[in-house]
Formats: sequence, C-alpha cells, structure tokens
Amino acid sequence: MRLSRFFLPILRDDPKEAEIVSHRLMLRTGMIRQESAGIYSWLPMGFRVLKRIEQIVREEQNRSGALEVLMPTIQPAELWRRSGRYDDYGLEMLRIKDRHEREMLYGPTNEEMITDIFRQGVQSYKDLPRNLYHIQWKFRDEIRPRFGVMRGREFLMKDAYSFDISVEGARHSYNKMFIAYLKTFARMGLTAIPMRADTGPIGGDLSHEFLILAPTGESAVFFDRGYLDLDWTATEVDFDDVEGLRHRIEDFTKLYAATDEIHDEKEFDARVPKDRQVTGRGIEVGHIFFFGTKYSKPLGCHVQGPDGSKVDVQSGSYGIGVSRLVGAIIEASHDETGIIWPEPVAPFQVGLINVKQSDGTSDAACDKIYGALQAKGVEVLYHDLDERPGGKFATMDLIGLPWQIIVGPRGLASGLVEVKNRKTGAREEVSPEDAIARFKRIESGWHG
Amino acid sequence: MRLSRFFLPILRDDPKEAEIVSHRLMLRTGMIRQESAGIYSWLPMGFRVLKRIEQIVREEQNRSGALEVLMPTIQPAELWRRSGRYDDYGLEMLRIKDRHEREMLYGPTNEEMITDIFRQGVQSYKDLPRNLYHIQWKFRDEIRPRFGVMRGREFLMKDAYSFDISVEGARHSYNKMFIAYLKTFARMGLTAIPMRADTGPIGGDLSHEFLILAPTGESAVFFDRGYLDLDWTATEVDFDDVEGLRHRIEDFTKLYAATDEIHDEKEFDARVPKDRQVTGRGIEVGHIFFFGTKYSKPLGCHVQGPDGSKVDVQSGSYGIGVSRLVGAIIEASHDETGIIWPEPVAPFQVGLINVKQSDGTSDAACDKIYGALQAKGVEVLYHDLDERPGGKFATMDLIGLPWQIIVGPRGLASGLVEVKNRKTGAREEVSPEDAIARFKRIESGWHG
Repeated sequence: MRLSRFFLPILRDDPKEAEIVSHRLMLRTGMIRQESAGIYSWLPMGFRVLKRIEQIVREEQNRSGALEVLMPTIQPAELWRRSGRYDDYGLEMLRIKDRHEREMLYGPTNEEMITDIFRQGVQSYKDLPRNLYHIQWKFRDEIRPRFGVMRGREFLMKDAYSFDISVEGARHSYNKMFIAYLKTFARMGLTAIPMRADTGPIGGDLSHEFLILAPTGESAVFFDRGYLDLDWTATEVDFDDVEGLRHRIEDFTKLYAATDEIHDEKEFDARVPKDRQVTGRGIEVGHIFFFGTKYSKPLGCHVQGPDGSKVDVQSGSYGIGVSRLVGAIIEASHDETGIIWPEPVAPFQVGLINVKQSDGTSDAACDKIYGALQAKGVEVLYHDLDERPGGKFATMDLIGLPWQIIVGPRGLASGLVEVKNRKTGAREEVSPEDAIARFKRIESGWHG
Repeated sequence: MRLSRFFLPILRDDPKEAEIVSHRLMLRTGMIRQESAGIYSWLPMGFRVLKRIEQIVREEQNRSGALEVLMPTIQPAELWRRSGRYDDYGLEMLRIKDRHEREMLYGPTNEEMITDIFRQGVQSYKDLPRNLYHIQWKFRDEIRPRFGVMRGREFLMKDAYSFDISVEGARHSYNKMFIAYLKTFARMGLTAIPMRADTGPIGGDLSHEFLILAPTGESAVFFDRGYLDLDWTATEVDFDDVEGLRHRIEDFTKLYAATDEIHDEKEFDARVPKDRQVTGRGIEVGHIFFFGTKYSKPLGCHVQGPDGSKVDVQSGSYGIGVSRLVGAIIEASHDETGIIWPEPVAPFQVGLINVKQSDGTSDAACDKIYGALQAKGVEVLYHDLDERPGGKFATMDLIGLPWQIIVGPRGLASGLVEVKNRKTGAREEVSPEDAIARFKRIESGWHG
C-alpha cells in the first residue's frame, strides 16, 4: 500500500480525552475515531489490526473443532424473559422498540439465543458434543465508557458455547477452549495468564479469566513467577486427547495466580516463596465459564440419552474481547515513540521509507523493493509522500510496524539500504536484494 | 469437515412460512434460522456462503483501490439532523434511546458518518481521490419483512463512498466501482445486468442498479439480448486507465436495459429489434449513485483546492447486498432437488458420500480421499453418518455442493469411485487417486 493512496489521518497532538496509552495512540495514529461515547469507527489502519486479531481467534477456534455461526445483533426480549435475565441485566442492556412496538434488545451476549438454536436443531445424544461460536458486535450501555476500545459500548466479541451430554464431557469441552485460548494469545505475542475467577452474572461453578500483564491493567494480579517459564507456544495439540489436555492444563493451573477479586494473601505466602511472588496489573482478554444446565433447563434444551431418557444439556460459554485486544496489545507493547506491533497482528509487516522522495535513484530503488515484496505477498506500507525524513521516521515509529526499510541516496551510493527492527531498534545495512529476501508472506491469518 | 462433527439441522419438510424458493431452501438446509421477523441467525452452512460472498466483494473492492474501514452499527441522531435526513427516513429507521436518553439509531446506511470521517481526516486536494468502504450489518425496519434474507430487517451490506475534487474525477470513481461490480458478480457465477436507475432517497443525478435474472425477481426487466453475449469475465483491469474504463462501461450501457420503474416501451421498440427483446424479472444485488455535494455541503466536507480556494468534495455511494446475494444466488441457481452452488461461493467444494458406513473398505477409501483432499486445502464435507444411501444422496443434492464423490463397496471392488457434477448431473467412474487429483484448493476467497 502506498501512503499516497491510503487513509491515515494522523493527529499532530495527543488527544486530550485519552487517559491511557492505547487510547491515546489509537486516536493519534488514526486507527479509530469516536462517533459517540464508547462507540468507534475503525479506520483502515485500525481495521487491519482488528481483522488480524479476529482471524487468529477464528483459526484457533476452528482448530479446536468449534463451528462458526453468526447470530444477529438485535434479539427479541421474549427470549431473555424465558431465561429470567431480561430484568436482571439492568440499564447496561440497550432496549429497543421496533415500529410495531415489539420489545427488542441489542445483544450483550448470546447464551439464550444459541441455546434455543441448539434446542431446535438437535434431538439425540449422538449429536453431541458440539461447540458453536460467533464473532459479532455486542452492545453494553456502560454508564461511563472510557479507555477507548478497552471499555467501549459497541464492541466485538468472540463468544463460543459448548453443549455436552455429561459433566465430564463438558469439562473436556471447557479444557479444549482453555487450550485454544492459550494458543490464541501466544500467537499474538501475548502472555495471558489463566486465573481462577468468579462467575458473576453468567453463573456456573467453574471459570477462568485470561489476563495479560500491563501496568495500566484494570485488576491487580498476584502470581507465581513460574508462569513466565512455561512453554506457551506448544502448537500441536490433539483436541480429542482427554488426558493429554488435562495434563497440559494442570501445568497452567497448579501454580498460584489470582486477581484482586479472589486473591488470598495467606495462601499466596504459603504456596509461593517470596522470591517467586509477582504482583502487577492485568487486562482481561478472555473469560471462560462452565455453567451446566443454567440455560438449558429454563429454555428446554434437552436430548434423548443412550437409554432413551431425556437429558438436559451441559453447557459452558467462552469469550474473547476481540476489539478490546487491539487496545490491550498496545498497552502491553509500546514505547515512548509509539506502538510496537507484534508481527502476527501488525497492520503491515514492513514500512518502506523513501528518505528523498522525487530523487530518481531513491524512487527507483523503493519501487523495486515495494514491487518485489508485494509480489511475494509481504504487506508493505510505502511512505511515498513528499515529506522531510524526520517526519517520516517519526510516523513509522509511531504506527509501529515491526520492520522498516529505509532507502536514501547516501546508502544507495554504496548499494545499501537500512533495515530497522522497531522493537529492538537494531539497524543493519544490506543490499536491496538482501532486504527483499529477508521477508516472506505470513501464510496463516488475515490478508488485507 | 465430517458431518458427524458439523451442525446441519436439515428440516424434513418444507417450512410453511417460506414464499420463495431461496427462503424455503435456506431454512430446509439449516443455513439460517429466523430469530424474529426479518432477523436471522446464520448457521454453519449459511455462514460459510455468506463469508465467501463477503470475501469476493472485499477482494474486488480492494483491487479497485477502495480502502476498508468499519463503522459502528449504532449512530448518533445528531449526525442525521445535520444532513436533514433524520426526519425524512420515517419508520424504517430503528430509533433508540440510550440510558442517558440520548437519541441514537441503528444505521440503515452511512453517507453522513463517512462524510464526517472524511471531513475530519482530510485537508487538501492532494488527499483525493479516495474511496472508503465497509461491510457491516444495517437495519431497516421494514413494515412487512418477507422472502427470508432477500428482504430482512437486519442485513449485511457493503457500502463504499468516493471522494473527489471534481465532477470528472468523481465520474471516474463511479466507473471504477461499476467495473468492480461487474467483476464481483461475474466471480460469483452471476450475470448481473447494469440498468440505469432512479436515485431515490440517496439523491443525485446518476445511478445504476445491477440486477440478476431470476423468475422470482421483484422487478420486471426489459433488455437487449446483446447483454448475454458480452464478455463479463475480463479480469485484468487497470483502474487508473480513465479512457479504458469509460470504453468498457460503454459496452455495458449502450444497449437498452431497464426495470419497470423507468421502462419506456416506445424506446424499447425503437432501439431493440423484436427478436432481441428480452423481458423477465430481476433481483437487485447492487446499486451505485453519484450525488455530487449533496452530503459534503451540509456536513462541511471541503478541501483546499490547488489554487488555495475551498472546494466542496464530490461524492458517490456504492452498495452491494451481501446477505441478500445468498438468497439471490439460490433464486438464480437451483433445481427441483435443491440448491446448485456456483463453485466460488459454495460452502464446500466437494461432498464425500460413504454409501456403506462401517464397511471397512468403504470407510478406509473415504478416509483416504478425505485426508488427501483436506491436505491439499480442498474443502470437503464428508457424510459419515450411519444413514441409508438414498437419504445421503438426497441431502447432498439438497445442499447443492458443486461436486460429489460417491464411495461404495461395489465400485471399490473394481477400484472405482463415482464423481458427480451437481449442476449437470454428469457422473464418471474413476480411481480414488484420479478423484483426488481432480480437485485443487481455490486460492482466492475465504477459507473456513
């Protein structure tokens, strides 16, 4: 993509309304624009990051065997009356009347609807287990939305729902999502520590939150340093291996980890030696629940068991805050000059900087590098505007693409261009051919 | 995908509420489920088709140089007051009050919001031209929603918006979208005839609808048979070639074509010889508009021109009904036994039928074919349930995957399996290896 054909409305100054770094940087880099309190448009740069995160989430859900569906944003109130949650939800639920005065609402979550879909579509225990998920916009009418996309009113969530014939089966479905979440966050370059959690309004008796560490996190977290030594990246998983999954999850749950909500100082001291105690702050990016028959019973979601008897379906639900992750990743990965995108979610892999626009040699070298990388499927943002080098460097550091290729007449005189790593700041002088050879298309994930 | 792990709630009988074939077939094949009048959930099979259509639309928008963004579903009423459309829109607009009694609405379209985004992000004529689009759910509170996803209340639309410094520039932007639309529909296996149209509530003075022919179409259409002889598939287009685009569009606009709204019988007879006159019915799947400064003026969207003067931006908008296309394609492509998916939008390329489940030889042959096709990236639905062959054949014909591979003990005894083309009904006996060799991954488009 040539910047001369892109839409990147960068702000010269820091926006005053932004209280936290991700909000500030997302507004400054023209990733988002606020349309109303807690409601944002995603401009091209922000949209690309959102899509990459969404696609990683999708791929790992699919790998675990979950099936993608898409439920509408607008739901009938009647469905929520049947579960008893219509009144419980309070003012956070955006209630709507249509032209025929029918009571509707903008879905804040989908336990009721998916349970009803499953009830209608399934008769026998042979049709279980299943896990259905969707990635859809939700609305929660927060009284005081803040922190940009970290706590918006209209937000994108992945929510999955598992259906099993037995509690043991449901436990395995829970474990599959647990492992899928570890893989999902690891692929984004995040360490998201699973912590036992309260179940809150979703209900149920087993729940974990996944929190990434960031100084601006909303929760205080307390955990065993041992978490940081675990291998988060193991990718080959047999999701049908019940025992294998259980063992792997043990490694991620046997050490102490808790948010302030349920932290117990005594237990912390008893289980974790002082020199392994870590306290910090965390941002919740995922939350999983097992709640058994909480929704299947009132909504009549049952199947015929092997012996012909009627069995209420055992369920859990599993959320990932897709739009929230965009902000959370920035909170965890930035420096004083701007964002530092982990490669798998970066809007472009490479930023190409022409230090002297309209200089014949520089333009030709840039065109060659740009064309060759595009041809290989490497996503490049070519800064081809007629601006001073200092401004171009600052912009590229601000938007945080993982790699920069810097091309100017002085280097070219010796046949060299510069390759800079945004994260480490390391620079290397190489030939244009070497610069091209270094990058390849990222096969998995979303391509814009 | 193994059917034993999929979610495909096929209905035994035709749903009574469905008046047209696409609605009937989408409900029967478990592609969608109605949640409320005109509001649908997309179940796994329907979701896959929706995504494939969306991705083809996206790829062709990107190729034309348009930039993807994502605006929220909920918009502030204030923005629509500035354009004067808040009151005009009537009861079709879903109006909402949030917890602070602020007036909001569920966006039926986005001219106002995108114009305001552009106004804020752009200062100079050098930042033009641009085309920004998004693919987002819209809501229009139809008084009597019907025909399933063809006329729903919550529907998925691609809407693009072009911004130019001059009328001539805007005309070229219009032409780019015109060509992108021809390519988009052709890639889906559709003949979508462009017809000059009224501009309606969007306003402006130049507009074309794209209609696909189907006996159940909502409009009567009258056109020159010459359209059917045009080459719709030409793919290599230089979108910067102003004259080239104009010439190509001439071929698609010089022949007579009109919907009943503006059809003129006298002109039809004068311009089209009797034996080339075609009358039929059509379904609108795209609509493009040039409306100049209709929104830029009231919303203050202007830039500094080359001479330093203030210039109001010239705009157009360009819609494709993404969710509607799912139904429209079925209307145009089905027979008495079910859907016939054009390959580029099919939920799976191949349906694999095991005629004798639990027969060792058949199971082994199916596993081998399934594994080999999966490894090549060919998307296969393997019917591995313990059902009678007749039922499996009927299901596969009903859901309409383009190809079937039929595996049974009798054929295998001679080392053969059957490959059936759903559209033509042609069958061929080949070795399992040949069956595998015939299919390859579709590189472009969406992969589930």
